[in-house]
Amino acid sequence: MNKMIYLFGGGNAEGNAGMKNLLGGKGANLAEMAGLGIDVPAGFTISTEVCTAYYENNGQYPEGLHEEAAANMKKVEEVMGAKFGDMDNPLLVSVRSGARISMPGMMDTVLNIGLNDETLKGFIAGIGNERTGYDSYRRFVQMYGNVVLDVDGHVFESLIDKKKEARGVSNDTELTSSDMKELVKEFKAVIGEKTGKPFPEKPEDQLWGAISAVFSSWETPRAVSYRKINSIPGHWGTAVNVQAMVFGNMGESSGTGVAFTRNPATGENVFYGEYLMNAQGEDVVAGTRTPKQINKATKKDESVLSLEEEMPDIYRSLEGIRSKLEKHYRDMQDIEFTIQEGKLWMLQTRTGKRTAVAAMRAAVEMVGEGLIAEAEAIQRIEPEQIDQLLHPMFDPKAEKKVVAKGLNASPGAATGKVVFSADEADRLGQKGERVILVRLETSPEDIHGMAAAQGILTARGGMTSHAAVVARGMGKCCVAGCSAMNVNYGAKKFTVGDLEVKKGEYVSLDGTTGEVMLGEVPTIESEIMRVTRGEMKSQDSALYDYYEKIMAWVDKVRRLGVRTNADTPEDAELARRFGAAGIGLTRTEHMFFGEKRLPVVRKMIMASTEEERKKPLEELLPMQREDFKGILKAMDGLPVIIRLLDPPLHEFLPSHEELLVEITKLKVQGGAAKEIADKEVVLNIIEKLREMNPMLGHRGCRLGVTFPDVYRMQARAIFEAAAELVQEGYNPIPEVMIPLVGHVNELRLTKKDVVEVAGEVMKEKGVELKYMVGTMIELPRAALTADEIAEEAEFFSYGTNDLTQTTFGFSRDDIEGKFLPTYIEKKILSENPFAVLDQRGVGELIRIGIERGRKARPGLEVGICGEHGGEPSSVEFCHRVGMDYVSCSPFRVPIARLSAAQAVLKEGVKG
Amino acid sequence: MNKMIYLFGGGNAEGNAGMKNLLGGKGANLAEMAGLGIDVPAGFTISTEVCTAYYENNGQYPEGLHEEAAANMKKVEEVMGAKFGDMDNPLLVSVRSGARISMPGMMDTVLNIGLNDETLKGFIAGIGNERTGYDSYRRFVQMYGNVVLDVDGHVFESLIDKKKEARGVSNDTELTSSDMKELVKEFKAVIGEKTGKPFPEKPEDQLWGAISAVFSSWETPRAVSYRKINSIPGHWGTAVNVQAMVFGNMGESSGTGVAFTRNPATGENVFYGEYLMNAQGEDVVAGTRTPKQINKATKKDESVLSLEEEMPDIYRSLEGIRSKLEKHYRDMQDIEFTIQEGKLWMLQTRTGKRTAVAAMRAAVEMVGEGLIAEAEAIQRIEPEQIDQLLHPMFDPKAEKKVVAKGLNASPGAATGKVVFSADEADRLGQKGERVILVRLETSPEDIHGMAAAQGILTARGGMTSHAAVVARGMGKCCVAGCSAMNVNYGAKKFTVGDLEVKKGEYVSLDGTTGEVMLGEVPTIESEIMRVTRGEMKSQDSALYDYYEKIMAWVDKVRRLGVRTNADTPEDAELARRFGAAGIGLTRTEHMFFGEKRLPVVRKMIMASTEEERKKPLEELLPMQREDFKGILKAMDGLPVIIRLLDPPLHEFLPSHEELLVEITKLKVQGGAAKEIADKEVVLNIIEKLREMNPMLGHRGCRLGVTFPDVYRMQARAIFEAAAELVQEGYNPIPEVMIPLVGHVNELRLTKKDVVEVAGEVMKEKGVELKYMVGTMIELPRAALTADEIAEEAEFFSYGTNDLTQTTFGFSRDDIEGKFLPTYIEKKILSENPFAVLDQRGVGELIRIGIERGRKARPGLEVGICGEHGGEPSSVEFCHRVGMDYVSCSPFRVPIARLSAAQAVLKEGVKG
Repeated sequence: MNKMIYLFGGGNAEGNAGMKNLLGGKGANLAEMAGLGIDVPAGFTISTEVCTAYYENNGQYPEGLHEEAAANMKKVEEVMGAKFGDMDNPLLVSVRSGARISMPGMMDTVLNIGLNDETLKGFIAGIGNERTGYDSYRRFVQMYGNVVLDVDGHVFESLIDKKKEARGVSNDTELTSSDMKELVKEFKAVIGEKTGKPFPEKPEDQLWGAISAVFSSWETPRAVSYRKINSIPGHWGTAVNVQAMVFGNMGESSGTGVAFTRNPATGENVFYGEYLMNAQGEDVVAGTRTPKQINKATKKDESVLSLEEEMPDIYRSLEGIRSKLEKHYRDMQDIEFTIQEGKLWMLQTRTGKRTAVAAMRAAVEMVGEGLIAEAEAIQRIEPEQIDQLLHPMFDPKAEKKVVAKGLNASPGAATGKVVFSADEADRLGQKGERVILVRLETSPEDIHGMAAAQGILTARGGMTSHAAVVARGMGKCCVAGCSAMNVNYGAKKFTVGDLEVKKGEYVSLDGTTGEVMLGEVPTIESEIMRVTRGEMKSQDSALYDYYEKIMAWVDKVRRLGVRTNADTPEDAELARRFGAAGIGLTRTEHMFFGEKRLPVVRKMIMASTEEERKKPLEELLPMQREDFKGILKAMDGLPVIIRLLDPPLHEFLPSHEELLVEITKLKVQGGAAKEIADKEVVLNIIEKLREMNPMLGHRGCRLGVTFPDVYRMQARAIFEAAAELVQEGYNPIPEVMIPLVGHVNELRLTKKDVVEVAGEVMKEKGVELKYMVGTMIELPRAALTADEIAEEAEFFSYGTNDLTQTTFGFSRDDIEGKFLPTYIEKKILSENPFAVLDQRGVGELIRIGIERGRKARPGLEVGICGEHGGEPSSVEFCHRVGMDYVSCSPFRVPIARLSAAQAVLKEGVKG
Repeated sequence: MNKMIYLFGGGNAEGNAGMKNLLGGKGANLAEMAGLGIDVPAGFTISTEVCTAYYENNGQYPEGLHEEAAANMKKVEEVMGAKFGDMDNPLLVSVRSGARISMPGMMDTVLNIGLNDETLKGFIAGIGNERTGYDSYRRFVQMYGNVVLDVDGHVFESLIDKKKEARGVSNDTELTSSDMKELVKEFKAVIGEKTGKPFPEKPEDQLWGAISAVFSSWETPRAVSYRKINSIPGHWGTAVNVQAMVFGNMGESSGTGVAFTRNPATGENVFYGEYLMNAQGEDVVAGTRTPKQINKATKKDESVLSLEEEMPDIYRSLEGIRSKLEKHYRDMQDIEFTIQEGKLWMLQTRTGKRTAVAAMRAAVEMVGEGLIAEAEAIQRIEPEQIDQLLHPMFDPKAEKKVVAKGLNASPGAATGKVVFSADEADRLGQKGERVILVRLETSPEDIHGMAAAQGILTARGGMTSHAAVVARGMGKCCVAGCSAMNVNYGAKKFTVGDLEVKKGEYVSLDGTTGEVMLGEVPTIESEIMRVTRGEMKSQDSALYDYYEKIMAWVDKVRRLGVRTNADTPEDAELARRFGAAGIGLTRTEHMFFGEKRLPVVRKMIMASTEEERKKPLEELLPMQREDFKGILKAMDGLPVIIRLLDPPLHEFLPSHEELLVEITKLKVQGGAAKEIADKEVVLNIIEKLREMNPMLGHRGCRLGVTFPDVYRMQARAIFEAAAELVQEGYNPIPEVMIPLVGHVNELRLTKKDVVEVAGEVMKEKGVELKYMVGTMIELPRAALTADEIAEEAEFFSYGTNDLTQTTFGFSRDDIEGKFLPTYIEKKILSENPFAVLDQRGVGELIRIGIERGRKARPGLEVGICGEHGGEPSSVEFCHRVGMDYVSCSPFRVPIARLSAAQAVLKEGVKG
């Protein structure tokens, strides 16, 4: 057996941060700090190899472990000037698990090991407070009993409750030191009863009991199943850290605090922290006492002294450690410290969590300071932080009254009057009123209302429901699937439990958290958004400056292109300003829902012959042409993928249910026969078009095959638009996309129509057009037969929304409100596969499709236009499988750019 | 260049049947007959290599071709005793294309090449009939103009029409020989006009024109696209056959006929055929003259002479040829012959089409005669012929009045009174009345009515609609998707156009053709079915004897197991008699629809807590236990796969639509508030369970994950049933199948419950049970991650219905009535993928799944339980990819057995 135990402390360490596999994350970091010469309470780490040996050897420790531990404990005693088990000056230790990566499901921590009736006296003498001493003892026995000896925590809680009842008090803090003394006795008694063994009094026994508990916790069912889900091999094992306790509550020269090496809210390069004298760590976070700022620079109340003033020497040491740690770790650190009787101990350092603004600023400034390279700065920004920077936020200082919580479907903050119909939202919106559109769920007919509203709140539907997808596309705040809410359209109100919210009352939505709040919560606008929109000058925004710098570095590094999904010239324009290099998906169906268009579209659908369909198609042609012209113009010189009609036709028709109820009423009430008959004709057509599973029904290219004239009209509109633009001096690059192809013959047939129309238009207009015809790969069969399909398709675009639906057999309209929450809760899935690409299943089809497609057509252009195109881990996957670009909603373009660069850097190809 | 032309005739041939690649199918077969010494009109075949060279050389013929052709023509003239282009005794020839396999889209045939104004005279002299001569000439010019010179056929038709008008006659036959003469002139004139060239008069030019037309037709768009769809390589090329014409209309010593070497209706070993003297082939089939039987043995009318009596020598020769051909081809032949002036010429021999009965008898008898081996006999039966033998048939002699046609959803013949509700069908059925259940479509609630009915007729739904699937499972006749039919439940009638059929009127359904007929068409019962059911003794049925022999041979050869899909003990029993070696799929949901059960099931579904669900589950337990006991008993000693609950729960609830209409009516009419409220509670629950795409929704193991108590109840019922059977001395082998698994974690969780329950039951009952837990592979993700899933699954069963749905993104409930017909018509798909397995796409997933699954668990048991398990080409695929068994409805078990044996024989591993 190798060396089993690694000492740290006393300005020295046998390990370092590079030894995580052997010492676990925690042990390696403690060693690293100690190795930097920083005072950490001394201790030692029993290596992961011991854990492995322990399991290989039926729970026997390797020979010599106890001896090695004893020798190290001696050294710890020397450094700390106290002795483990000593009655007068007892050294107390903590025992913590520490695997390679942090792992819930395992034993966490036991503090104050070494306390017993004997050592307690010396401990109390040291801290000079009997009650605190007994309370610590009580906590130790309780924690040890629960965590190490596996006695149910409720047992202890109920004893405490009984005690409080007997004393007639309601808070733990009101119990006296003799109460605590009694509780210790009662705890030990119950432990003896439950375990059949007395509570271990000998510090040595306590220590090894805790160590064994850590090792045993590696194989508990919870830990095993966590590892299974997260693909962590069992043979990694865990390390055990035994570390001396230090106490910030040993009188007025003691204290404790937490600090950040820079301001975590703004990123400003200033030392920022809080502390309390004569206190333990939990007092700082518990909020029972108000902590103080550590230095003058960050003081809020001039009358309160800071650590810098109170203990200048200690503060100076701390500041030295701050700069040492930042230089060493080259990142903002979150540190914990304790001052024990005038001596400063560092308990922890870790990368500090920070706001989006802070992350951006710190990253850029650290490059300026020469602390990190551009590539590292790129890796320092969480892609989702970019998202936060783009949406308005609620003023963090404002008060909020949260009444319900839904899914955080589209980030942002919105406040407005509640309305229950799209028309009303539209009407009020045009008057300049701020409204929140509340619906059971939304449908394409609600789009004008969604556009007019500040935010959308739905009772049903999930992260990829209509409301969620459209809202994200619009960059509009949306809380979806708020199932606690009962919407009553008739009474124009919604209720949550007893609470009633009527039409016209104000609510606020937080799309980042899913919270629904009463009243108007004030918001602040995103500077980056304002500059991008041209509403603010870039030189007036320091934040934009940081953003711009980062994005410029990002673009130097990334290889993956980023396009946008956009259905309007406005979206296209905005996306271009966000850095989109073209359009990956223009959905033409949204264009069919305009007020003037829908009646024409309905006429087209209800036509029973090609002849009848001719007129409405002719009416639609110029409208569509103008649509495409606007978009192609906004993306002048860049490729624009336009998808031909995709959704099932009944989506354009009135609701079957409403019509049925209407007709039933008319019949019962003896309504006019003519009116009933007319409505029944429509009902019949809707019934004919109705499908059991519309997602798998008559849609996509199936429409193009059965109604070729519809696709031909759309193709004509595209090419006429392009031809006119060429004549006007522009450079349009349309790419026509046939949706839902599962068999090459579908594409062959529909493509032929498109190419024919293109030829006709070019001849008529006398211009040459650059264009391609390709397909979406959104069905498993398409991916599996990609070699055949690539013979016809000039490009592939993965429609991962539908591909996820068919690969899993999940209907995204249904699962989120139904079984998906249970699936996440029971850990069947770790994430919603419609938000985060399922790389193992759906990704496998993508991989197969690219491989087979490029085999048949080398250099085939491949992209993704599903929702995943803007999700960081999915973008990384797209990069890895060799896609040419990702396409996402305008607001996610910067996120995708950043993710694409990070994907490159993850490969180790630093820019 | 190799030899380009191959001569045949005169008792000799340069080619043979093995040279199809070089001579095409037709040429090789003509050579084969000639090589056997049988007199065929002499001719020669220009090889496919010439075609290839022709295309490689820009439409130039290889050097020497004309010379080689001329030399061969000389030999043909010698054999036939006539001369091509001779005025007195002209040889006429036909030119036919002939690729390796028969290919529509190419030029077919031009007859009577060599006729012109000169040779016509000699020709007329030969046949001794001027009008026939001119008519032949007219036909030649017309055919040549159309087929070779590409003049639209309508041009000729309209000239003929004009001629008839001018002559005041209405039939072609009424035109005189001078009319024909004029028509020839007019035809030539119009050809000259359209082509800009005179009609070729020189026989040599006619010949080479026709040959070139054949070669050119290889690359017409129609032929090219046909090849693309059928994966025929373009480089195969076509051969050209030039063959001497013979004439059966040269007077009373001439004639023509067709014959089968055995009776094609019964299979009896007797020479069977028809002929006409002084006639051409088309006269025999046209029906204008009544043909006569060729021999005494088959004569129907004693007063009419047979060929055997009329021309005994010729007949004797013919009989010699019959026996030579049967011995040579070792199969029943369908032959054509012509007698020209007392000389017998064979024009064609090919494998004869036969009825199912004939196929069976002939195959068995030929083995007895030593003509073929058992393996060949097996290959002689079309699997679908077995199907025909199992279902009652309409008496072929009966008169039928077909009023509509739907999909031939489930074969068989049924006659009965029309009823429009399942309850009524049930009621009348119990009284012993024969009824036909007519519905818009059926649902699981109709099952009792379907069981009671003779046949089912639906207006909507396709080959895999509920009606179709259930009917096939029941072996019951069904015509589905009869869209011409309008069903009016209210008026209790259906209409087809003007025709009205009221409740109680008789109709007859032909499930084999999809025909709907008025009145009672008499049927005859299947003998094999009656013997299998034990209603007839096997020794009383010669047909059963043939069947039994074939099936015994089949079982010796096949390696693939055959199980059945059965939900009742009766089905299981029947399938076992049909040779099923276990059950591949027992659907438990059908058991939930019983009259007593549905209310309990509804209570279970409407329960909002696990607690509330307890009672109905307890009520269901003994019922399910009895279900399983019956089935396991019927399959004693054989494995029985039981699938846990699969369909979405709302299938068990009342119709949302009907309830909505009901409530609306009650509200408008001011119904009782309590009643309305009660109904609204139910409506709310239905609405909560309702899904946009139920196929992709909350069903399968998703139910087992969210409602584990339901699966546990089912598992308990299974294991209690098995335990009781063990105690009664039986040997039950239950295999529990978890449906719709897409992620291994779903299986892990639900399997854990099943295994736990199994353990509990074994302990309670004190018996050991053999069982397995496995899964259906019916989602693309399951196939792609089969390695992970096989770690938990002890068997795989491919649910190819759902797998086809998700792989294609097709909803089988929707597509058949909507775009599938267009898809077939436009040749996007060659077949309905729900009937015939899509080997390229779905099959690829099956292949991947088996490979990955067996890698993780060697020896993993793999089967199929989708509808495809009884479809011959799909069974062959299952054999090829190494499945252990297929499972199909009881009635298809013999078909699957046969197909499995044929799959082995196709591999060349003859049994």
